[in-house]
Amino acid sequence: MAHDKATVRTVLDKARSDGRDALTAPEGKLVCDAYGIAVPEEGVAGSAAAAATLGQAMGFPVVMKIVSPDILHKTEAGGVMVGVKSAAEAEKAYETILANARKYKAAARIDGVQVQQMLQGGQEVIVGAVTDPSFGKLVAFGMGGVLVEVLKDITFRLAPASQEDALSMLDGIKAGDILKGVRGGEPVSREALATLIRNVSELVGDFPEIAELDLNPVFASRNGAIAADVRIVLDWNPPPQRYRPSQQEIVRQMNRIMRPDSVAVIGASAEDGKIGNSVMKNLINGGYAGKIYPIHPKAAEIMGRKAYASVKDVPGDIDVAVFAIPAKFVASALAECGEKKVSGAVLIPSGFAETGNVEGQKEIQEIGRNYGIRLMGPNIYGYYYTPRNLCATFCTPYGYKGHAALSSQSGGIGMAIIGFSRSAKMGVSAIVGLGNKSDLDEDDLLTFFEQDDDTHVIAMHCEDLKDGRSFAEVAQRVSKKKPVIMLKAGRTALGARAASSHTGALAGNDKIYDDVLRQSGVIRAPGLRDMLDYARALQKLPTPKGENVVIITGAGGSGVLLSDACVDNGLSLMRMPPDLDQAFRKFIPPFGAAGNPVDITGGEPPKTYQNTIRLGLEDERIHALILGYWHTIITPPMVFARLVVEVVEEMKAKGIEKPIVASLAGDVEVEAAAEHLYDHGIPAYAYSTEIPVAVLGAKYKWARGAGLVR
Amino acid sequence: MAHDKATVRTVLDKARSDGRDALTAPEGKLVCDAYGIAVPEEGVAGSAAAAATLGQAMGFPVVMKIVSPDILHKTEAGGVMVGVKSAAEAEKAYETILANARKYKAAARIDGVQVQQMLQGGQEVIVGAVTDPSFGKLVAFGMGGVLVEVLKDITFRLAPASQEDALSMLDGIKAGDILKGVRGGEPVSREALATLIRNVSELVGDFPEIAELDLNPVFASRNGAIAADVRIVLDWNPPPQRYRPSQQEIVRQMNRIMRPDSVAVIGASAEDGKIGNSVMKNLINGGYAGKIYPIHPKAAEIMGRKAYASVKDVPGDIDVAVFAIPAKFVASALAECGEKKVSGAVLIPSGFAETGNVEGQKEIQEIGRNYGIRLMGPNIYGYYYTPRNLCATFCTPYGYKGHAALSSQSGGIGMAIIGFSRSAKMGVSAIVGLGNKSDLDEDDLLTFFEQDDDTHVIAMHCEDLKDGRSFAEVAQRVSKKKPVIMLKAGRTALGARAASSHTGALAGNDKIYDDVLRQSGVIRAPGLRDMLDYARALQKLPTPKGENVVIITGAGGSGVLLSDACVDNGLSLMRMPPDLDQAFRKFIPPFGAAGNPVDITGGEPPKTYQNTIRLGLEDERIHALILGYWHTIITPPMVFARLVVEVVEEMKAKGIEKPIVASLAGDVEVEAAAEHLYDHGIPAYAYSTEIPVAVLGAKYKWARGAGLVR
Repeated sequence: MAHDKATVRTVLDKARSDGRDALTAPEGKLVCDAYGIAVPEEGVAGSAAAAATLGQAMGFPVVMKIVSPDILHKTEAGGVMVGVKSAAEAEKAYETILANARKYKAAARIDGVQVQQMLQGGQEVIVGAVTDPSFGKLVAFGMGGVLVEVLKDITFRLAPASQEDALSMLDGIKAGDILKGVRGGEPVSREALATLIRNVSELVGDFPEIAELDLNPVFASRNGAIAADVRIVLDWNPPPQRYRPSQQEIVRQMNRIMRPDSVAVIGASAEDGKIGNSVMKNLINGGYAGKIYPIHPKAAEIMGRKAYASVKDVPGDIDVAVFAIPAKFVASALAECGEKKVSGAVLIPSGFAETGNVEGQKEIQEIGRNYGIRLMGPNIYGYYYTPRNLCATFCTPYGYKGHAALSSQSGGIGMAIIGFSRSAKMGVSAIVGLGNKSDLDEDDLLTFFEQDDDTHVIAMHCEDLKDGRSFAEVAQRVSKKKPVIMLKAGRTALGARAASSHTGALAGNDKIYDDVLRQSGVIRAPGLRDMLDYARALQKLPTPKGENVVIITGAGGSGVLLSDACVDNGLSLMRMPPDLDQAFRKFIPPFGAAGNPVDITGGEPPKTYQNTIRLGLEDERIHALILGYWHTIITPPMVFARLVVEVVEEMKAKGIEKPIVASLAGDVEVEAAAEHLYDHGIPAYAYSTEIPVAVLGAKYKWARGAGLVR
Repeated sequence: MAHDKATVRTVLDKARSDGRDALTAPEGKLVCDAYGIAVPEEGVAGSAAAAATLGQAMGFPVVMKIVSPDILHKTEAGGVMVGVKSAAEAEKAYETILANARKYKAAARIDGVQVQQMLQGGQEVIVGAVTDPSFGKLVAFGMGGVLVEVLKDITFRLAPASQEDALSMLDGIKAGDILKGVRGGEPVSREALATLIRNVSELVGDFPEIAELDLNPVFASRNGAIAADVRIVLDWNPPPQRYRPSQQEIVRQMNRIMRPDSVAVIGASAEDGKIGNSVMKNLINGGYAGKIYPIHPKAAEIMGRKAYASVKDVPGDIDVAVFAIPAKFVASALAECGEKKVSGAVLIPSGFAETGNVEGQKEIQEIGRNYGIRLMGPNIYGYYYTPRNLCATFCTPYGYKGHAALSSQSGGIGMAIIGFSRSAKMGVSAIVGLGNKSDLDEDDLLTFFEQDDDTHVIAMHCEDLKDGRSFAEVAQRVSKKKPVIMLKAGRTALGARAASSHTGALAGNDKIYDDVLRQSGVIRAPGLRDMLDYARALQKLPTPKGENVVIITGAGGSGVLLSDACVDNGLSLMRMPPDLDQAFRKFIPPFGAAGNPVDITGGEPPKTYQNTIRLGLEDERIHALILGYWHTIITPPMVFARLVVEVVEEMKAKGIEKPIVASLAGDVEVEAAAEHLYDHGIPAYAYSTEIPVAVLGAKYKWARGAGLVR
């Protein structure tokens, strides 16, 4: 546990003073020893005879490798011989290796030949570490050989990783079952392997100059995990620390921005079609109750409000300044905001980094830092915060209050969020445009939404995380309290190319995003519509108390598809205990299907739905319900919807709340029924057996990550 | 190519006369030799000395195995020794094997010890064959070792498989790249390996009594593919041939059923709420122009039509009889239909196999066969055929004519089809309920829709294929002409369990379904909504002429998500040639993004969309367009929709037609724009970047399978 940092420091300092960016094998062993990373017995021989002696001492077979600071790719140089079986072979191998090395690079400094115990048996795996521009140090784990190369079967975690993180990596690869022993193989020691992974992660966490580390292969067996080969690459120029205010400071700033008492509109206009006009209209018509100050060089009054030539002329304090002026005027107006001690600048204008004007963006970034103004954007539509009736945007106002906070990096996606929300009557607490993210980004928003009682679920569209490390740290904390959903665009090589031409940002390796988001408890939405559906449903669904899901369906066909969807979304259909099975059977026709799904069959009256749903809610062993409705004359859609709401409210009065979702198969009347159900807390979907299960699955995924289930 | 069937016949006859259900290794070798399946050199030794001599002749090392008709699991019996290196070792091994075998099963007949050339090097793969209850003989291929066991990395094709089918199997597994040579490995001979697979498939195709065959491992190398071990299991009781009328006969029958001149309603009723009343109403109000005969024991007239006590009393011919009577009356009424030479019986009633009444279903099945009446159902909602305004169902009538034919095994899913179609204004040619499929099933429908000019795309919900082999054969033919989409329910173990409790049908192995559907050119829909979206869009999209897809987007953020979706759906974003790039740049602002997506940026007027879309249609190198619209004041949603339609129609007049799909990001007005676009042949979707690309991807998948692209 307590690592020997001093030894590592000495080894690294020596490499640095030599001007090297890699460690030699013996240095690698020293570093591994210092961090409890098991490596084979070994020694360095300066002569053929010494090689033979070393081999005899540790026992043959051995592996012999050239030791030279100038030869990194030892195999390529002919500097490696494996399976050396005797003293005579060791002497011969020594000479061969030296000759090969000289042929490869005549001027190479040669420190000798390493003689190493040859590891055999066990499962070959790979453990490594990399430095990601956004996430920083990451530890990696994968199976050796073709599995990592052909199937890209590798997984990452932020370093340092906990023992639990490390253990999760063993199950995080597709071929993880191999470690449990297949085809007569022995299972490996999971603790030993996880400990090795954790130690590697702590090593790179403690020494930022270790840019890359490779243990390849590591032999994992029942008895332990030993790294057969160590490769450590150094970087003496680590990236500069990013600007990060304290969490407390962020909360203070964000509270002034999201819940302002006063808003100035720089570039306010009375002229229809102007952005400064739309912003004014939205603020006023949206019902914002704070002070609104139009800023305009000449006008005395705009839309009935007294106008000022500069924010500096405004008599009272200003919390937020919304910019609706061309890019070239932003810097000077921003400086004035600084002098006025404005807390947040909402930079709608485009014409910065996204059009190549990187310098212009840097300039405003610096002004913001100097004055302590937080910048939203530039290149955004603005933002909404419904608890304050605040529509600080040029888009149409949005007023349907609720508990989903959404953000988008792109304006187009922001418009899709607004349109979908309005159309699907999604209750929203906030919608925020982040655009070029010159300053405020996802982790600032998370920090605010964490303590915002009006926000119960957070959904973010994002093309890149400028500071993935900070985001992950904040998300890890926030996701324990509220679901955090992310649509990470640029997932694929093609998408990433488009992302990079769009924002000038380097798109990250998607596998890293995937693993780190999971490690941080973030639910990743596969697509735009999924993100929207999750945000809409998750704020309604109560948190499940356990894994037992039961399907109650009037349509057998829906039952099958809902079961398929349960598997797709990682949900467990409860194995029905005999007494519960009997209890359900009491309510359904004799030819209804037993078990789970509970198939009540098609021609049943409302009472059958009612009785079975009530039972599903009352029985404590059941934790969540999926309803499959089939439109019939006997139980029309609205009758079904009302009876479900009735039972749910009856149970709520008794203190029973469980997540319920519904799939409605029927003619167009089911759409109104779905709406009625959603309005009463039951996410329901017409013509789909997948969406209801997907949103329930997302709720479960979150609840598991937050430690609320199991 | 020409196989030696006679030899195989002799070997099998011998096994049969011995009463064995497996072949010995030497028999296996004979069979392999007869079908050009390479196996190692070998011989059977009757003594230790003979084993040594054989080994010397073929060269050591060798593998030695017990030969006994009574020992199937040779390894378990201690009957296998590998790596026998010399004559002395061979003699010793002979004695050991015999001793082990006697210990394992004292009474076992022992024919000797097989001495076999030991194969080394090359890539270990598995080739096999199985018999599926629905699909019959299938050939299987996978990588050896952990890849098949842990990752279930195996793929199937119907046997016999063509060389092309066999080649496709090499790419059909996840780890297929290994065969191309990785980590310095040599690529294997694809032709040799495919030939071996094809030969195996022909062998099991020619000899139905071969129930299972395992070549494990097969060593594939640059020089060929040799099966190191052969295991053949026999089944002397192959399932009986299924009833299969000729394709011509099916077309004749189905034409009378789908385009009837006269329909009888058995159980017609004037009483509201009765199924026989709903059917009458739907026939009449749906506008069916043929003769309608109500059948009722007493009534003289129902809904203004003369009623008859029996179909036999009806003066003219009857093409179709719709049954709206309880299950217990069906058999006798069906027999009367038989006497009347009715072509099709539409059996709405439930109460047959799905409620356990298997005998009742068998009874009506036999009546149908005897009289040559085709049965639809039982346990269905009926069917629609819009070109004849025919709504022979108790559900609500559907009249929006178009070119998608849909079917469902389940009634609930049928209602979802009707509701979705009406809500999304999907043009439909037919909706058919198949229910218990006592007779008519998916391949009968396919055969009809193949030659139905009103049907351009076929979409089927299905829980099991009673005769997967027939379906695959018909689908292979039909899918060359029209897209065939299938939603296969019961994909997962859980879903399959629900399916089997629902219909009493054995759910098939999903991997087999997946592979065979692909082999048959069927597009598999991952979920219900996907099936509906595909059916709705594919009938509108022209067939692409090549793989070059271009995204034109006003929202950079949509561009990234659309690119992601392209990768997810197997679409290739065209690499933009410099001249075309320049041509696009002429129309877009200087900071618009180069390449593909073409990012025209957000604030552009209609002209920019118009110019770029026109260019995308005019340039012959581009084969399909994906549009990303961003709602702005400058180009409002309906303006965008109209301009797209205008350009598309302008190009159509010049003979240019390409598939176009659109993703609309904006406020709720985009929904009307999406509808306008769809009405004019451009599938367009509000708030989604995934669905437009998924439907285009489905069209491509079909076109590739049908050989229309590339």
